Amino acid sequence: MTIAHVTVVGLGLIGSSIARAVKARMPSVVVTGHDASPDVRQQARDLRLCDTIADDAAAAVAGADLVILAVPVGRMADAANAIAPGLKADAIISDVGSSKSSVADALAKALPDHVVIPAHPVAGTENSGPAAGFATLFEGRWCIVTPGVEAPEDAVAALTGFWEALGAKVDLMDAAHHDMVLAVTSHLPHLIAYTIVGTASELEEVTESEVIKYSAGGFRDFTRIAASDPVMWRDVFLANRDAVLATLQRFNEDLTVLQQAIRRGDADKLEDWFTRTRAIRRSIIAEGQDDPAPDFGRKH
Amino acid sequence: MTIAHVTVVGLGLIGSSIARAVKARMPSVVVTGHDASPDVRQQARDLRLCDTIADDAAAAVAGADLVILAVPVGRMADAANAIAPGLKADAIISDVGSSKSSVADALAKALPDHVVIPAHPVAGTENSGPAAGFATLFEGRWCIVTPGVEAPEDAVAALTGFWEALGAKVDLMDAAHHDMVLAVTSHLPHLIAYTIVGTASELEEVTESEVIKYSAGGFRDFTRIAASDPVMWRDVFLANRDAVLATLQRFNEDLTVLQQAIRRGDADKLEDWFTRTRAIRRSIIAEGQDDPAPDFGRKH
Repeated sequence: MTIAHVTVVGLGLIGSSIARAVKARMPSVVVTGHDASPDVRQQARDLRLCDTIADDAAAAVAGADLVILAVPVGRMADAANAIAPGLKADAIISDVGSSKSSVADALAKALPDHVVIPAHPVAGTENSGPAAGFATLFEGRWCIVTPGVEAPEDAVAALTGFWEALGAKVDLMDAAHHDMVLAVTSHLPHLIAYTIVGTASELEEVTESEVIKYSAGGFRDFTRIAASDPVMWRDVFLANRDAVLATLQRFNEDLTVLQQAIRRGDADKLEDWFTRTRAIRRSIIAEGQDDPAPDFGRKH
Repeated sequence: MTIAHVTVVGLGLIGSSIARAVKARMPSVVVTGHDASPDVRQQARDLRLCDTIADDAAAAVAGADLVILAVPVGRMADAANAIAPGLKADAIISDVGSSKSSVADALAKALPDHVVIPAHPVAGTENSGPAAGFATLFEGRWCIVTPGVEAPEDAVAALTGFWEALGAKVDLMDAAHHDMVLAVTSHLPHLIAYTIVGTASELEEVTESEVIKYSAGGFRDFTRIAASDPVMWRDVFLANRDAVLATLQRFNEDLTVLQQAIRRGDADKLEDWFTRTRAIRRSIIAEGQDDPAPDFGRKH
């Protein structure tokens, strides 16, 4: 299967980065874009993100070999219904959502006669909107593809090849396992970051101004992901509720253990724990998944 | 009061950065260094961090106008006892510890006849040891000075001027308030980061290899501060136990509220919360306390 025409529905950080990356790395591929927001469509036109920006979702997918839905996971069903009348019979429909079981169900229900292959590029920044994207966002990052059992092999291979052409590394995974893995590596961290930033901003004893001034002691690291798109993240937690709550339970157990160690003055337990966690970062850097420079490479 | 000779005791990340910054910004000031570890002293000599590296703590402080103890907060009393025989009568003794009430008590007890002015530069990276330091670490960061009521004004002014000369901004604060502010902005974030990195590495359902591969979804942000020095942080939690446990209690309350919102599917509560936390990061960037580039300025 050859992908000669891609349509991206939803032109925020991820969708606009896909459009830019296709234009940068696959200049012969036609890129059509659509967004439900007239304002975003206008920004996308001004930024020249795509060959064409279509005002209508069904018109946007006409002739597309691959359609990627890059909308919040709570809007996948609506987006799929909107494109359905315009799809080619053999088009591949994929997405970029951060939860996969619920999206797979929603897309299968909305598009029962089409080839649907959910996917999730594990990449992003804290910024949102069409201006925030960039062509190199996916380079060296993993894209997890979660084909159902009925997905045609050549379509899976075409989607895999597409993401590799954008610079990503591809893993195939069961949707349920994806949701557990991402609950740990992405959803729980976001939930914790959102929580602590909220906690810090509402203490009586410490002013918000003090929290901001002295944030270089560690707090600022949490504020980056707590600045991510609120609607996207609201939807992720609701769509992946069970896996998020299961990992949160484990986190709470561990936090209680450390809380007790502090209360009891158990120095050995604390030092052992803190020594163990140190090794993980080295592995992440060795795997090329973070910047080896101190402080994430922040300027000093 | 003129500070013509500084001795730094403890030549890890912070101590070695002070030595470098003094040499870079105050070339006429003599810098003597000492570390309890022979290996660290040798590294410091190889790196030419100081004018002199003394093998003996009391000898190191001979003639010093300002002595800065840059050791883990649990070792402050031992360090103060070790330097006591060598101190000039009018020397100022300060430190860089992350908790201030317990350090103030320990230093006052060990050095009852000297001018002790605790301080805490809110700066650092996840790296440790004499090779990890750099001269610009304190530029634009806050240094919190917590003088007791009996501290002579000219000595406070001299210490304040010293930190300003290193590029820091100085705030004066009560030690107990410092401990509450830092519990929120630094100690709780470290505790949470240590917890979640430990949790993620011990799940049965998700392998450590998967956690590492897909860490760009958010988890990697927590691994930086969870790679900080284990002994330093063990001591911080024990020294600032009450404030840490108090803020942890507040965090746990907020986390329970969000957990319940997810379980109940309360979309509005989640979106409201996530929208509110977004603003804090903008303020931190506006205050110059973090890099405005996406992803902390990581290379893409």
